[in-house]
Amino acid sequence: MEEGEASELLEAMRMSINSELKTLIDEQSAIHGEVATRAGEILLAGGKRLRPLMGLLVYELTGGVDFDEVLPLAIAFEMVHTATLVHDDINDEAATRRGSPTIHQQAGTAKGIIAGDWLFVQGFGLGGQYGGKLVEIVTNCCARIASAEFSQLDHVLDLSTSPEDYFEIVEGKTAGPFSAMCEGAALIAGSTDEQATNLARFGMELGIAFQLVDDILDIIGDKRMGKPRGADVHEGKMTLPLIHALTLLHGDERRRLGEIISDFDDSLFDELIYLLNRADSISYTEILVNNHLERAANILDEFPDSKSKQLLRYLLNNVANRHS
Amino acid sequence: MEEGEASELLEAMRMSINSELKTLIDEQSAIHGEVATRAGEILLAGGKRLRPLMGLLVYELTGGVDFDEVLPLAIAFEMVHTATLVHDDINDEAATRRGSPTIHQQAGTAKGIIAGDWLFVQGFGLGGQYGGKLVEIVTNCCARIASAEFSQLDHVLDLSTSPEDYFEIVEGKTAGPFSAMCEGAALIAGSTDEQATNLARFGMELGIAFQLVDDILDIIGDKRMGKPRGADVHEGKMTLPLIHALTLLHGDERRRLGEIISDFDDSLFDELIYLLNRADSISYTEILVNNHLERAANILDEFPDSKSKQLLRYLLNNVANRHS
Repeated sequence: MEEGEASELLEAMRMSINSELKTLIDEQSAIHGEVATRAGEILLAGGKRLRPLMGLLVYELTGGVDFDEVLPLAIAFEMVHTATLVHDDINDEAATRRGSPTIHQQAGTAKGIIAGDWLFVQGFGLGGQYGGKLVEIVTNCCARIASAEFSQLDHVLDLSTSPEDYFEIVEGKTAGPFSAMCEGAALIAGSTDEQATNLARFGMELGIAFQLVDDILDIIGDKRMGKPRGADVHEGKMTLPLIHALTLLHGDERRRLGEIISDFDDSLFDELIYLLNRADSISYTEILVNNHLERAANILDEFPDSKSKQLLRYLLNNVANRHS
Repeated sequence: MEEGEASELLEAMRMSINSELKTLIDEQSAIHGEVATRAGEILLAGGKRLRPLMGLLVYELTGGVDFDEVLPLAIAFEMVHTATLVHDDINDEAATRRGSPTIHQQAGTAKGIIAGDWLFVQGFGLGGQYGGKLVEIVTNCCARIASAEFSQLDHVLDLSTSPEDYFEIVEGKTAGPFSAMCEGAALIAGSTDEQATNLARFGMELGIAFQLVDDILDIIGDKRMGKPRGADVHEGKMTLPLIHALTLLHGDERRRLGEIISDFDDSLFDELIYLLNRADSISYTEILVNNHLERAANILDEFPDSKSKQLLRYLLNNVANRHS
């Protein structure tokens, strides 16, 4: 499949996900009023819809033939994802999200918290339709997001954060939902337990790669995303390039890096990058990205060729190329 | 059944609910660490367990014979209830809850928000076990809590809040969960749809009465609860006695009442009570309490006599007598 064709097919899927989301918000706004409208504004303001896209593709990959079967779960993960963004933005005091003003910024913290709760509720309502094992997957995933977020808060500006700490946080918060989405979609399609477990791993690997690319983009910048460079460093988030450099550097350079991270401002950016390059930390992170993507690709290779497999491969390549 | 016996039986049920909650938190703390521990501290710090108690009793009333069938739902409603308390306490800047320091007070707003989310997740995981209609009941209930909270925020210090506004908020936020608990428990026990609908109404009536008593206690005080008098007035919450007095008084008295509510401090308490008595607002609210309890009792009367029916009657009387 050519790149252009893959990109067009994914765009069409994205549009049908967006239209599902729009319908849901319209229906719910009629019932629940402002809380649904405000939550809807953030939900519909944009977003790559990567989680639901992966859900639909994995469903097809494992033999599913009727998207309506998997759509509620796909939408559920997008709602839960947006719920965590709404609550994160309160904690990070962010003014905008997906180019729109955040809810807490427009309507106060109380409404921000409640609107996030409402999005969680909707996600669970959709996920709950499946009962049994699927409910367990969604619940465990969401509970792990919460414990990972606790851990992340504990490691803000913690210069001794280890790679193990980092991966535990990323596997809970970012990669876990990708993994749960893929596992759930496979089970709904009627996959074997082994296939579902492998696809859970696939989602995890892709999710880790995704976060590592985010970490790189926070340092080298990302014109396409419109996200300001250095946001993580400003928030004291210990990204992998920082953790790597703090581990590898020593003496004056290690001390200086610690100072820069602990009291960062934009004027220190060049020096930060100099020190990260001294430790080859960005290259190291890029290597990790490729390792995780390769593992994800190897899992895909176990499946017979199909349109959905090619589109999942295209998504993998896209994760790798976000900063190119 | 004598009062002493009813009280003992309910206490035994309360203890078994508490022990279920304790087991759950111990298990989850081993997996999810601090977020579960902190949420557990609030969950286990006390509480009347009125929602789960009603769930167990309604289940038995409608022919259920194995509490294990209904316990996950009963526990789910207690988790969701506690989740809303944790998030409310952030919005109200409350320092303590159930005699313990609030999570946000101890560990910051971010952890408070996330711990509340975690409690929601646990509630949904438990409720989700039932699938189908039960998931719908829990989801609608929780979504209505959120929209009612939005409405409540919009009516803070709004002197033109109508009784209709008030009852919409109370039915969503306080009484809705009682109603959903009763409806769900009846369905799990295998009740007819008509019985379930009637018991949903029973829960709603009891919940409204419960909130109206709370409104009265906020003004006349409640030694047993240890809750400071006037908390609602300080927060600008428009309780029914205030709404009633604002509607009935006119001229200087109405103007003065508006001033007192808009800029309340404890030195104004006697004057507030004087004005509420001028409008007979506390007596009026007491009459409403009795009306709602009577409607609840009438629904109970449709069921044949049983131990659970007597205990539910005892709970009803208890709601009425909380301030005596």
